[in-house]
Amino acid sequence: MTFDLAEGTALLQRTPAMLTAWLGELPEPWLRCNEGPDTWNARDVLGHLIEAERSDWLPRVRHLLQHGDALAFPPFDRFAQQRQAERTTPQLLAEFTAGRAQSLAELAALQLRPNDLERRGRHPEFGVVTLSQHLATWVAHDLTHVTQIARVMARRLADDVGPWRAYLRVVRAEP
Amino acid sequence: MTFDLAEGTALLQRTPAMLTAWLGELPEPWLRCNEGPDTWNARDVLGHLIEAERSDWLPRVRHLLQHGDALAFPPFDRFAQQRQAERTTPQLLAEFTAGRAQSLAELAALQLRPNDLERRGRHPEFGVVTLSQHLATWVAHDLTHVTQIARVMARRLADDVGPWRAYLRVVRAEP
Repeated sequence: MTFDLAEGTALLQRTPAMLTAWLGELPEPWLRCNEGPDTWNARDVLGHLIEAERSDWLPRVRHLLQHGDALAFPPFDRFAQQRQAERTTPQLLAEFTAGRAQSLAELAALQLRPNDLERRGRHPEFGVVTLSQHLATWVAHDLTHVTQIARVMARRLADDVGPWRAYLRVVRAEP
Repeated sequence: MTFDLAEGTALLQRTPAMLTAWLGELPEPWLRCNEGPDTWNARDVLGHLIEAERSDWLPRVRHLLQHGDALAFPPFDRFAQQRQAERTTPQLLAEFTAGRAQSLAELAALQLRPNDLERRGRHPEFGVVTLSQHLATWVAHDLTHVTQIARVMARRLADDVGPWRAYLRVVRAEP
């Protein structure tokens, strides 16, 4: 196990400010473009991050600490944001910022020690997982959705860049 | 041609603040991890963005407006940052922020009109390109390097996430 909780939370802490600086006042076409039918735009990703904050990351930490590997996590609904009420982009960013701050405050209050990171839980699909793996996944999940937002916006330029397309893998990427 | 200059510059304008909010005070291991020999870490990417600002984006706009497609752009050195003096990450971010602000001020001062975007230049490798393609590439180039930074940091977690690796394409991506 090499995951460093302090380093991980340092990244988690910065994601809301980074997304706000990037997307907060961006023209709507960037925020509403997607990669075709059944793909997400940047606003859908924000809704998903809010939902994960609400029902995945800290809830599963608490579930694992309470039940160990005796009881599987409740499954996470990756499409829950599609049933949420329409919000402006600044509202989505504010909601994500508040949710993340609350998660990190609760995480800090747990005062996890290195030994705790080895505690085991049960994933509904993967079986036994450790708290460390779950927390590392939280960090990697932020990063994967940052790449997604950048890719979705870049693909909007796929034709506009002309022959540079050959050098810009991002505009040719698969969703 | 669908590239919208105002929308494009809106994104270009936000990249420095976004990178500063994300990377500014991040623990060094995130900023210094890479994907193996001859790959870049986040700091190398910042050096490259600074260099591109200095010698690629606006210089080529001016070159194209002056020479049209009669004279090819000077080639861009994608490794110039490796010969730059070592700087702290906040110094790199400040330098990129200043360089980008200056580029966008110079771009605005050119008062380009829609017709200008169709003006032609000559790329040393691709041949004839348009100003619009060059400017769209500037935007896509920011986005491709955002995906790179997120991917490089995510791959540091490739083992830490355990079985979630199956769901996190970013930790398995090729450099």
